[in-house]
Amino acid sequence: MATKGGVPQEFLDWVDSEQNIEDFIERLAKAVHIPSISSDPARREDVKAMSKWIFDEFDKVGVDVKQFDLGTQEETQLEYPKAVLGRLDVDPSKKTVLIYGHFDVQPVVGQWETPNPFRLVRKDDGRMIARGSTDDKGPIMGWLNVLQYFHDKKEKLPVNLRFCFEGMEESGDGGHALDRLIEEQAKPGGMFEGVDCVCVSDNYWLNTKTPVVTYGLRGIVYFKLKVWGPEKNLHSGIYGRMVNEPMTDIVHLLSNLVNVDATIRVTGIDRSVPRPTTQEEQLYEVIDYTVKDLQHAIGPQGAPVSKDKNALLMNRMRECSLTIHGIRPTVIDKDPGPMIGTIIPASVTGEFSIRIVPPLTPEKVKKLVAAHIAAEWDQLRTGNQYELDHAGEGDAWLADYNHWNYEAARVATCAVYGQDPNLTREGGSIPVVLTFANSIKVKGKDGQPENANVVLIPMGRGDDGAHSTNEKLDRSNFLNGTKLFANYLYLLGGLPKNDS
Amino acid sequence: MATKGGVPQEFLDWVDSEQNIEDFIERLAKAVHIPSISSDPARREDVKAMSKWIFDEFDKVGVDVKQFDLGTQEETQLEYPKAVLGRLDVDPSKKTVLIYGHFDVQPVVGQWETPNPFRLVRKDDGRMIARGSTDDKGPIMGWLNVLQYFHDKKEKLPVNLRFCFEGMEESGDGGHALDRLIEEQAKPGGMFEGVDCVCVSDNYWLNTKTPVVTYGLRGIVYFKLKVWGPEKNLHSGIYGRMVNEPMTDIVHLLSNLVNVDATIRVTGIDRSVPRPTTQEEQLYEVIDYTVKDLQHAIGPQGAPVSKDKNALLMNRMRECSLTIHGIRPTVIDKDPGPMIGTIIPASVTGEFSIRIVPPLTPEKVKKLVAAHIAAEWDQLRTGNQYELDHAGEGDAWLADYNHWNYEAARVATCAVYGQDPNLTREGGSIPVVLTFANSIKVKGKDGQPENANVVLIPMGRGDDGAHSTNEKLDRSNFLNGTKLFANYLYLLGGLPKNDS
Repeated sequence: MATKGGVPQEFLDWVDSEQNIEDFIERLAKAVHIPSISSDPARREDVKAMSKWIFDEFDKVGVDVKQFDLGTQEETQLEYPKAVLGRLDVDPSKKTVLIYGHFDVQPVVGQWETPNPFRLVRKDDGRMIARGSTDDKGPIMGWLNVLQYFHDKKEKLPVNLRFCFEGMEESGDGGHALDRLIEEQAKPGGMFEGVDCVCVSDNYWLNTKTPVVTYGLRGIVYFKLKVWGPEKNLHSGIYGRMVNEPMTDIVHLLSNLVNVDATIRVTGIDRSVPRPTTQEEQLYEVIDYTVKDLQHAIGPQGAPVSKDKNALLMNRMRECSLTIHGIRPTVIDKDPGPMIGTIIPASVTGEFSIRIVPPLTPEKVKKLVAAHIAAEWDQLRTGNQYELDHAGEGDAWLADYNHWNYEAARVATCAVYGQDPNLTREGGSIPVVLTFANSIKVKGKDGQPENANVVLIPMGRGDDGAHSTNEKLDRSNFLNGTKLFANYLYLLGGLPKNDS
Repeated sequence: MATKGGVPQEFLDWVDSEQNIEDFIERLAKAVHIPSISSDPARREDVKAMSKWIFDEFDKVGVDVKQFDLGTQEETQLEYPKAVLGRLDVDPSKKTVLIYGHFDVQPVVGQWETPNPFRLVRKDDGRMIARGSTDDKGPIMGWLNVLQYFHDKKEKLPVNLRFCFEGMEESGDGGHALDRLIEEQAKPGGMFEGVDCVCVSDNYWLNTKTPVVTYGLRGIVYFKLKVWGPEKNLHSGIYGRMVNEPMTDIVHLLSNLVNVDATIRVTGIDRSVPRPTTQEEQLYEVIDYTVKDLQHAIGPQGAPVSKDKNALLMNRMRECSLTIHGIRPTVIDKDPGPMIGTIIPASVTGEFSIRIVPPLTPEKVKKLVAAHIAAEWDQLRTGNQYELDHAGEGDAWLADYNHWNYEAARVATCAVYGQDPNLTREGGSIPVVLTFANSIKVKGKDGQPENANVVLIPMGRGDDGAHSTNEKLDRSNFLNGTKLFANYLYLLGGLPKNDS
């Protein structure tokens, strides 16, 4: 049953007032109007303008904001957009909550149903369509809505707040500069000193109707496997059947990494993941998700590997996965045109990645893959050479969902949506979550420092299309998300400061 | 032992005169100076200029030449370079020999040791470096040298000649327009009516010291195998291990086409090729070729599939081969940049080709591959879809090397080089050879029409680098080739017209 949770009715009424709704949406429209595409060097100035805009908006509602220089991007020699960090202290006896969001967006791809992806278009069905509407400007505007209330009403917030907003999340840049800033600010004297817990709103519900609170993310290890032999591309007529062909070798190797049913053949990976306990299975049992939901997402010709919804969810959330992303020739003589041509490629590189879950670490997975490929290579009996490289990695993350931070998130969600949220893990990675978890230390039960608890509270729905065409945020999710964020803060405000 | 063969000493002395050598090389330099790259639409005018140049040069030495319109290339909407056909009749009681060559060249790739690949550079070691020097302008100039002699000396040629020169051989265009012209001209009343045999000089020795006469070419069938499922590329974090991945499926399928040792797994292909007879094995035994020659050609890290030279040669010349040329995503969201990215490709296409030998035909191979892949697909138990397409094919060609046309080629070669030529088959394809063989009919032993005999007499060496950087023709091969061509004609001139 819906309860108000900790939030006063006055706040809920304020959010629901027509004028305020107009103002909220108007501010979101301004936010998405800045095309802050971080992966496009030509848009870097827009991302920097977005950083300044975020600074100004949070400054207006009374947050003590500061822009932080993140240096120069090596690849482009362009300055990074500045991170915007903020603090708003109300009472040292209250908890301090760190909020994260990113103000950059994905590039525009494909054909949109609206004329300009950077103009917010409101649809009668409630969709507000724009690039960045749900990922991740909507959630940032949600926090701004909450702060607007306390600013306009001159009310005191229930907790102390810290903010961390950045503009390179979607760039694939690795974010090392931001990681270092967070680590720095987590130290004594830094802006994040004294933070009790962290909240990130940068993921989505599993479907379109059931809210979610997320406690885990898979890690990733990205591999590049190169196989080579001949010193140049060879004519397949002349050399076909005379030499070991690197492409043949790599196809045999890659087919020994993963089965068609998606189970992993790399020795030691699948069996390192403990079977779920009955209690854990129960978590998946209650998740509101069906095979139809998956089929809808992947299209009528996509093929789920199981007919069992629980098995599918566990495959996504608590099992490793191995995807071969591509195979390409390393030596390119000329543009191959519409046909790849009739050469024997002298050298080919296959790229694959493994999404990992605890207890597997990138280190462990790299060792297992190296050993597996070395053993398979010996079996091939080819005279070619191979080299296995890594190209990026990230740890898996798993939080304690029995923590008071989760209790607040769950109760707040239930109060707004009238139903318990699904407790989920995500198949993908949000590297900054691990940076927060590992950098920010709180006093543990035994008095020793331990990692801060991070909770993921999504605002948008599973069909928002965060990285694709017609990205949208539903008006109801925007308003309910605003209420949910406030409720979460009120619930935390009701807890004693030193409950770890 | 070297003999003069049928050629008069006067001809040999004429070729060896310093002034004539200078003139021959000067004419070759003029020929390569026209950058007649047929695959580059921007160079089409140069290929057309080359057609006119060939027309003029053969006209000057008394050939009755004519340019033939080949229509418009669909892909570029550019006019094809005209084919140059010629006739030179001396005596209806003499044999009529059809000579083929192509005056277009490969694109320039890589870093050359000379400043301009279209300027012939003579090296002290005898190499004459230029694009087109050996492929195929050198051989055409060889025939021109021979004709120059008869023209200057006002001597009568020992045979009647027909010429077929074209300018789209290296374009990958398929040459259907030329095929139709050849078929047309082979009919009664056409320029090729009454042709007794065909000679093509557009291939190379196996090594750098032993001349070759070639009696076979492998055919080819080119396949495109597409596998698809999801309606769009999926995020590997979110969907990894939930769906059948087309890339995983195709890697498993392709690994079941061919073994690392290059034997073919497609049921019915390898076993359709009869084992060599002792007599046939003897042909390979005497071929001057070593594993070292192969190793030299593929570089120190290339890996021959056998340590036995005869096995390697038979693999190239009398066995089928299967090469996987590449695998690429069919749906591309955006430029993948330096990394392929972390998507699950929604659809992938693998391209492979099979080089075929008799008795296999493209029709038979297409059936065998389709059946094999259908059976393998069932075993995969994936929910994705696949489609197998063909993209080009050509029959294998095998001539009777006991024919008088071969006898003339072998004796002529032996006379010039002092050693018997190696009788070889080529691993690659020269489609026009089949067009000649199938279009031009001669009276067979039983009085019935049968296919004309075609012989391949290469001028250049195995290290000429026909399609790569620093393409060259050795001065000695140019001059000896000229003598060889003349000798071949004299030997044919000594045969009765009606010996079939």
